Amino acid sequence: MHIIIFMEISAHIICIGNEIMLGHINNTNAQYIARRLSSIGIKTIREISIPDDPVVIISSIKESLTDSNIVILTGGLGPTVDDLTLECISQALYRKLIFSKVVENHIKAHFKKRKLKMPANNLRQAYIPEGAKVILNDIGTAPGLIIPARKKILIALPGVPFEMQPMIEKDVSNFLKDRFRPDKIIKSRIIKITGLPESEVNEKIEDILKIEGNVQMGIYPHPGEISVKITVTDQDKKNVDFTISKIEKKIEARLKNHIFGYDNETLEEVVGKSLLKSKKSLSIAESCTGGLLANRITNIPGSSEYFKMGIVAYSNEAKTKILNIPPKTITQYGAVSKNVASLMAKNVRLLGGSDIGIGISGIAGPGGGTKKKPVGQVYIALSKKNKCVCKEFYFLGQREIIKRKATQAALDMMRLH
Amino acid sequence: MHIIIFMEISAHIICIGNEIMLGHINNTNAQYIARRLSSIGIKTIREISIPDDPVVIISSIKESLTDSNIVILTGGLGPTVDDLTLECISQALYRKLIFSKVVENHIKAHFKKRKLKMPANNLRQAYIPEGAKVILNDIGTAPGLIIPARKKILIALPGVPFEMQPMIEKDVSNFLKDRFRPDKIIKSRIIKITGLPESEVNEKIEDILKIEGNVQMGIYPHPGEISVKITVTDQDKKNVDFTISKIEKKIEARLKNHIFGYDNETLEEVVGKSLLKSKKSLSIAESCTGGLLANRITNIPGSSEYFKMGIVAYSNEAKTKILNIPPKTITQYGAVSKNVASLMAKNVRLLGGSDIGIGISGIAGPGGGTKKKPVGQVYIALSKKNKCVCKEFYFLGQREIIKRKATQAALDMMRLH
Repeated sequence: MHIIIFMEISAHIICIGNEIMLGHINNTNAQYIARRLSSIGIKTIREISIPDDPVVIISSIKESLTDSNIVILTGGLGPTVDDLTLECISQALYRKLIFSKVVENHIKAHFKKRKLKMPANNLRQAYIPEGAKVILNDIGTAPGLIIPARKKILIALPGVPFEMQPMIEKDVSNFLKDRFRPDKIIKSRIIKITGLPESEVNEKIEDILKIEGNVQMGIYPHPGEISVKITVTDQDKKNVDFTISKIEKKIEARLKNHIFGYDNETLEEVVGKSLLKSKKSLSIAESCTGGLLANRITNIPGSSEYFKMGIVAYSNEAKTKILNIPPKTITQYGAVSKNVASLMAKNVRLLGGSDIGIGISGIAGPGGGTKKKPVGQVYIALSKKNKCVCKEFYFLGQREIIKRKATQAALDMMRLH
Repeated sequence: MHIIIFMEISAHIICIGNEIMLGHINNTNAQYIARRLSSIGIKTIREISIPDDPVVIISSIKESLTDSNIVILTGGLGPTVDDLTLECISQALYRKLIFSKVVENHIKAHFKKRKLKMPANNLRQAYIPEGAKVILNDIGTAPGLIIPARKKILIALPGVPFEMQPMIEKDVSNFLKDRFRPDKIIKSRIIKITGLPESEVNEKIEDILKIEGNVQMGIYPHPGEISVKITVTDQDKKNVDFTISKIEKKIEARLKNHIFGYDNETLEEVVGKSLLKSKKSLSIAESCTGGLLANRITNIPGSSEYFKMGIVAYSNEAKTKILNIPPKTITQYGAVSKNVASLMAKNVRLLGGSDIGIGISGIAGPGGGTKKKPVGQVYIALSKKNKCVCKEFYFLGQREIIKRKATQAALDMMRLH
């Protein structure tokens, strides 16, 4: 008989720094590390942030080494007297600090390469706890350290995210996978939805969101966009993929073409790909979104292939002069109207010599609203050679939220047409 | 003889949620709460994130109530069975959960207002620990709770940031100030700098950044912008203001007009104010920044007063057709050149009938660079009636970073001219 023991590999993350405790910085390290650990089957069971206080640091290290298999520390590895992590590890583990020639050489080379004089202080970073495995820092001077402590592992990493991240990606992940051989895989899939309010998405997939067992479902709203996340934990990769794909298909059957993409895909990326594929070009005329749509479209590398021109016609003069909107039309219907938005779309299409034209006119607020045309009212028109559609929207939120939602709606109209 | 006892008011923040432990969401609540507490003189000494596990939640509450005066919990107050916070508080404090009519009515009104049927589950949120003071939720259904526990205070808040934040701003801050009358004031001032690399700012104010005692200095780089933060802790408000203003003046003397603003001010806001004040109007023509500059300018409410028009001339045809750049000029000097950027600035100024014109042309990458004109090379021109200046820049970074840095540089040229 085979007895399989499921050892849960658990981790604590400890972030050290007064600047975190004062709320000066948004600590993204804990999230980054937790996500990475989760992807290799290691469960984070506690994230702690503490000040640069040796008593607190030492007791936190001891406590976390008792309660979990792996403890990852970030911060406090710099060259100044405020950086106490190495000294605290030494005291928590009762290990001497020894001078590392390897780290010394690496720090000296760092300064030499940059043609800078090395401050004497920096050599403090070369005193590391006995038995530590060094991870050299490709960007800064603080080394990362992997320190086996009986059956547990203590890992100390720099607090600067772009120095910490490569260490986690390579050395730390490989070391932990090799050391603990986690028996479970955790995998996530994000389904991205637009054009429906959260409550409606919720309603349509309520039963799916309640699936439990080795599945965790999540729904996360963003302006004009909803993410549904499926996370599956299992020992078997095939099971994980099968479960994800089964749930994914169920959701697709319910939400159909409101789903615009998966995982990290953005709406502007999806629209861009489809324009590239169909070899269609695009020009846009924006009023209330003030350039945000052009900006999002041009955030995609290679967008110059399909994006011809953007006009931000903020004033009525601009609408008349550049986009040839007759002043009479503006007076008769108002700048925020179906008529003006449709003309903006058509005229910018002709002006840019492109296949598709988009026109957006609305009121982003906080000023400028009236009873008849309140803040958040936006008209979005899409013009093609023989066709023009225009939709009316009412968006809630502050100025930047309304701008964002309007560009989402415009991109979604492009995606669907 | 007077003996003054300095009681340090300390807080623990506990964030509850499996989605944090998996790294699915960036937990911004801890930072938000810590910053707000710090501004009213309360020191956060520990931030913890833990999973939706009742054993862990109960032991964390007990531990934190032992180690600090104030414990603020977020998350786990929703209507589903996964939401365990109320039950766990009840067990940790040995208090019964009692049904609150006030909360019940509030939840019912919430659904009625939205013309939605209330799921029966939602009334779970009305069972609150005995002795709790309720903070009604203006946005969702989960109430906030302030629970005195002997000499300590336990506060439970919703995990959704925009439901939690108004509660912290009003009810929680006022309650804590009144209850603890913190004897120390912590105040911060941010000085915002542009047009200098971080190393140069560092060098110019190195000695100031090392000031210690009741002062904490910080330097934080962002693309095209550096924040220097002064934080002073003292019992006396006058001392705090005096110390901040003394350090501020020192920094101003060193960095002069590289300082563009303070605290939450943005560069687009500063430029907008100055345009409003001088009654000057603005039009812009962008190539590589693809609408980001227009977008940033129009993020400022009231920008329609001074912003006339933006042209995103991505293709050469657009540059020729809309901005009247002679094809010969483009062929001779290239689209990315001093000549083209200067003509873009001049012609968009004339086209928009505005006082100032901005032209930006460059290579945002990742494609399109050559040895002679590498990715990151950007020309920015500013045209006024009798004057045109054009500057050449080399920005490092990815596409969106280069776009951001280029708009920072353009806004800074506007600010200085």
